[in-house]
Amino acid sequence: MGYTKEDWLAINTIRILAADATFKSNSGHPGAPMGMAPVAHVLWNKFMKFNPKDPKWLNRDRFVLSNGHGCMLQYALLHLYGYAVSMDDIKAFRTVDSITPGHPEAHDTPGIEVTTGPLGQGISNAVGLAIAEAHTAATFNKDGHRIVDNYTYTFLGDGCLMEGVSAEASSLAGHLQLGNLIAIYDDNHISIDGDTNVAFTEDVVKRYESYGWHVVTVDDGDNDLDAIEAAIKQCQEVKNKPSIIKLRTTIGFGSKQQGTHGVHGSPLKADDIKQLKERFGFNPEESFVVPQEVYDLCNKQAAKGAAAQEEWNKLLESYGSKYKSEHEELVRRLKGELPAGWEKSLPTYTPSDPAIASRKLSETVLTKIEGVLPELIGGSADLTGSNLTRWKDAVDFQAPSTGLGTYAGRYIRFGVREHGMGAIFNGIAAYGTLIPYGGTFLNFVSYAAGAVRLSALSQVRLIWVATHDSIGLGEDGPTHQPIETLAHFRALPNCMVWRPADGNETSAAYYVMLTSKHTPSIIALSRQNLPQLEGSTIDRAIKGGYVLHEQEGADITLVSTGSEVCICVDTVQYLAEKHNLKARVVSIPCFEVFDAQSKEYRLSVLPDGIPSLSVEVMSTMGWERYTHEQFGINRFGASGAYKDVYKKFEFTPEGIAKRAVATVEFWKDVPNIRSPINRAFQQLI
Amino acid sequence: MGYTKEDWLAINTIRILAADATFKSNSGHPGAPMGMAPVAHVLWNKFMKFNPKDPKWLNRDRFVLSNGHGCMLQYALLHLYGYAVSMDDIKAFRTVDSITPGHPEAHDTPGIEVTTGPLGQGISNAVGLAIAEAHTAATFNKDGHRIVDNYTYTFLGDGCLMEGVSAEASSLAGHLQLGNLIAIYDDNHISIDGDTNVAFTEDVVKRYESYGWHVVTVDDGDNDLDAIEAAIKQCQEVKNKPSIIKLRTTIGFGSKQQGTHGVHGSPLKADDIKQLKERFGFNPEESFVVPQEVYDLCNKQAAKGAAAQEEWNKLLESYGSKYKSEHEELVRRLKGELPAGWEKSLPTYTPSDPAIASRKLSETVLTKIEGVLPELIGGSADLTGSNLTRWKDAVDFQAPSTGLGTYAGRYIRFGVREHGMGAIFNGIAAYGTLIPYGGTFLNFVSYAAGAVRLSALSQVRLIWVATHDSIGLGEDGPTHQPIETLAHFRALPNCMVWRPADGNETSAAYYVMLTSKHTPSIIALSRQNLPQLEGSTIDRAIKGGYVLHEQEGADITLVSTGSEVCICVDTVQYLAEKHNLKARVVSIPCFEVFDAQSKEYRLSVLPDGIPSLSVEVMSTMGWERYTHEQFGINRFGASGAYKDVYKKFEFTPEGIAKRAVATVEFWKDVPNIRSPINRAFQQLI
Repeated sequence: MGYTKEDWLAINTIRILAADATFKSNSGHPGAPMGMAPVAHVLWNKFMKFNPKDPKWLNRDRFVLSNGHGCMLQYALLHLYGYAVSMDDIKAFRTVDSITPGHPEAHDTPGIEVTTGPLGQGISNAVGLAIAEAHTAATFNKDGHRIVDNYTYTFLGDGCLMEGVSAEASSLAGHLQLGNLIAIYDDNHISIDGDTNVAFTEDVVKRYESYGWHVVTVDDGDNDLDAIEAAIKQCQEVKNKPSIIKLRTTIGFGSKQQGTHGVHGSPLKADDIKQLKERFGFNPEESFVVPQEVYDLCNKQAAKGAAAQEEWNKLLESYGSKYKSEHEELVRRLKGELPAGWEKSLPTYTPSDPAIASRKLSETVLTKIEGVLPELIGGSADLTGSNLTRWKDAVDFQAPSTGLGTYAGRYIRFGVREHGMGAIFNGIAAYGTLIPYGGTFLNFVSYAAGAVRLSALSQVRLIWVATHDSIGLGEDGPTHQPIETLAHFRALPNCMVWRPADGNETSAAYYVMLTSKHTPSIIALSRQNLPQLEGSTIDRAIKGGYVLHEQEGADITLVSTGSEVCICVDTVQYLAEKHNLKARVVSIPCFEVFDAQSKEYRLSVLPDGIPSLSVEVMSTMGWERYTHEQFGINRFGASGAYKDVYKKFEFTPEGIAKRAVATVEFWKDVPNIRSPINRAFQQLI
Repeated sequence: MGYTKEDWLAINTIRILAADATFKSNSGHPGAPMGMAPVAHVLWNKFMKFNPKDPKWLNRDRFVLSNGHGCMLQYALLHLYGYAVSMDDIKAFRTVDSITPGHPEAHDTPGIEVTTGPLGQGISNAVGLAIAEAHTAATFNKDGHRIVDNYTYTFLGDGCLMEGVSAEASSLAGHLQLGNLIAIYDDNHISIDGDTNVAFTEDVVKRYESYGWHVVTVDDGDNDLDAIEAAIKQCQEVKNKPSIIKLRTTIGFGSKQQGTHGVHGSPLKADDIKQLKERFGFNPEESFVVPQEVYDLCNKQAAKGAAAQEEWNKLLESYGSKYKSEHEELVRRLKGELPAGWEKSLPTYTPSDPAIASRKLSETVLTKIEGVLPELIGGSADLTGSNLTRWKDAVDFQAPSTGLGTYAGRYIRFGVREHGMGAIFNGIAAYGTLIPYGGTFLNFVSYAAGAVRLSALSQVRLIWVATHDSIGLGEDGPTHQPIETLAHFRALPNCMVWRPADGNETSAAYYVMLTSKHTPSIIALSRQNLPQLEGSTIDRAIKGGYVLHEQEGADITLVSTGSEVCICVDTVQYLAEKHNLKARVVSIPCFEVFDAQSKEYRLSVLPDGIPSLSVEVMSTMGWERYTHEQFGINRFGASGAYKDVYKKFEFTPEGIAKRAVATVEFWKDVPNIRSPINRAFQQLI
């Protein structure tokens, strides 16, 4: 209440900065920033708790721009409020190596919480941030010491609402009664194809009510700052439901083309910018100008935030003296460091241990480490009993009123919502106090491809427990048997794909996944039992690839992963007996980690002079990088008992030996067989 | 109305068949078939119009089991009603090479319309089937000749409702007012994790009302056949909205564990099956038994269907005499054949033609062929102006009451719903009269990975127009620049990935995509302009790979796709001038099609004796199959003007030449360089 002309000056400054930056880069989206400048101003100037000098302050309010194409709005705000985003950075909008790229990237720009742009992700990340807040608060807050009580705010547009991922995450958020989440829907009636009435005529209010959200409508988001403020206040007061404000705005407000899709994704024309500046009382001859009054207004709010953090620091200090271990724990988590010696909890195995499915080995790891790693928060997309992601006696993360769990619970029932789960992971990981993991079948990680990609791009630590990882799942058949999935995610930069062959490799995978602070992982796990292998150790497997079985004067190297490694081991004997051939066996549970080893090491694993054959029951794509010949499945699988399916596709000692013999034969005339590890040049990284 | 004990006998026969088959295979999902047997019986015995002797009859009602894990329900129905699914087939449930795999597969089993199992897909396919029906009816029906007026029915469970893809498709179905679509929601309160209240507490009725659906609730789906019948009737009468019936059932009805998740995904125990058979008056000592009264009852309905088709055949005959050209057109389409000579409409280019972005070249193809291929029905996920998927004067596919188009319109506004679009494509393609295509950015085809996989598995013809295919999109930056995407879909079996380099290659791609009846395609298209290349022709490019630029005594072969081919051509000159090296250039616009050529041909393109270097601005994964060395981008991209981004990653003649020199140097000591086309053995296909 009591908005003055300084407020409107700040609002119009944002609008003009967005117009200037998109004009200069001749690219970008002025419409959303211009339409949402009023609500952004009200939210940032009246409500948001943040300290630009410490963008990582734990108890800051989180702000997520789910309609990330409108990022000039966010860059303008970051600049005005004193984050390390200079006017030169704004001028460098959408140019190579700037910190103001075409869509907001969390790892690049101070003050950006999560990477957005791909629609529907941001609102889903916001659900994850809110879950993390609720859990952290329930875990660490004490009477008189509310260390954590921030809100998560998110802006979103029609596009975000049309995407299924937001539907999944929103339904779950309603179920979880996340009162700390406030979404603001930019209801501007415009998407790229024009008026939203060509494709999007659902009743958004009713839909969000059906999810159990609190819904408020503001009819004039262009002018009625008081109504916006009142709506946000009302949402803050609803503690047991997430809120969404349906805010009617005019896209590109102030432009001659306002309210049309002409301002959505293209810069304004020069004459339009001129009239815009005149209309708002700016000098039309100048660009990238911020009136001092606007800086002053924003600095005032930023100073409030800094003061709030000061207060909070004192609170934390008092907390530290009263609750020493909790305090140490929190500080440790915020650094992203694991407790010393945690890895001693990882189970190890010897060949005399029984054969166990790697999904079950994964369950054992989780069970053994959950106590020492309280930052682990997990779940499954409705496949708990199949993914084996839940340790015994885990408490569910649920609204306490349901009687089904508490917010301190560490097991999330995601429902059949893989994409939502992946995007929520990204939000949980971004919060700073937790490491999320979650299960589904490997085949259905693909449903979440959009979110997995952003995990990798935004460099967050999280784990997909991807069970039923091949034709080895058997009867469920081709609809569920991955063929292309490992190739897909191995091709994704900064994403580790693990496929362990036994217990020690499973422990090694967890070791690397959990100690890699800036990389998400997928661990592919078998449904069927796997023997504990002679030659596998955690130390060897953490290199991503190693010699499982060495043999002097070998004729061939068999290279494999996961459930096929033990068949390769059996093939060694078969080759010796039936074909008088000597074979080595190499296990490469993780391409990405193996690639990071020294060339010398890699050559010791895959040496010159010996032909090699890869064996993996899925697409051969990518294996040519490591082996001379490839045995895989470049078609869809089959439904049947898993042993029958393996037999059908000839993944038996006999079938592998047949290819091994062909490989040896084919390469015998080549004098100096070169290992594929040798390359003419290094790739740019 | 008037249900007798024969009806209940039929219902219980289905239940027991499901129990027997899952017990025998020791695998599968008895719960859903047992719970949904009553509604299945009412629907199939009172409403569904079908002829088991001609499962492809155009005007049959379509049935889609979206909760595909319950496929024993569908297999039992197909058997009882006389489709070519024998009792031996039922007994072979979930065994290798049976026609009764673990989830329903359309290409395997007569009477299965679409491949389901991955949750959320079937209901979305059903939306596609309903769109196709509405369009075909609007296009072909004439006064007195309603050639097409079938319904699409779909069963779905909680899992389908939780998946975002169903949310996308359902919202669009409501917008499109598809009165020919009737969904039946198996509200059994159970999912794999137990009671749905752990994760799924939204108000489904309200949600579907918010989408604009007609919603009916039936409280006792276990017993009240009259209420089920009345509900379906009511839905049939609502012509301007899709309908959903919320049907309360008991999962595993009849089992000792009914109503629990114990019956969801595991066979019943032997003693449970015994009591089940006793309870329903069956001999507990016998398995796989169908009482003759049940066959009789079902045959009666099947005979009605056969008679209905007889009537329809007469109608079609009369139609043929009155509307000769429409009739011929319809018959042609149903065969999946394109009109003779259609390919003459494909544009061709010479090097003197101007440089044009391949997305624009694609638009030209669509514009030239839409007249001769009226079965093409297209759209975009809200990127029409970017994907260039809409020919001038196209009519939108919209409910006529909106005033925005008609059901005869051939352009679908999908909204920002990539996954829904992909699943809808599958339904449209399955209907039999249409070839769907649609646009989004290549990066966002990944959002639809679940649907694309099923396109490939179910062998349907459709086209993803995937523009903005690389770092060449420039300013939008890493969130939008594909790196892993081509590797992903190239690894997917039976999916063609095209990346044309110029106009002739774009025409060639469309030629192959449209004439491949059983394969979906993705065509990756540039945002930036590409010159028309010397040496490219449609005839050459339809082989998937060819020599664009030959050179005697070449030192190296440069192998590329799409927008990098022209840079390779420039590199030839650079290498000659600066390094005195001779280079050939090979273009491989489609791996899958190139792989299908004779080995002799492939070796002529990628011959022995010459080292080769691939050049593509994305993941190098997969290129090792064709080339000795690879130049690509195995990291995320950058936001900036596209020329700056290409320069940053060194995709310039100079940058390519640097790698080419390194390649020649590295391979110069190898005496008989072997082309990677040579392999020790053939892959199983």
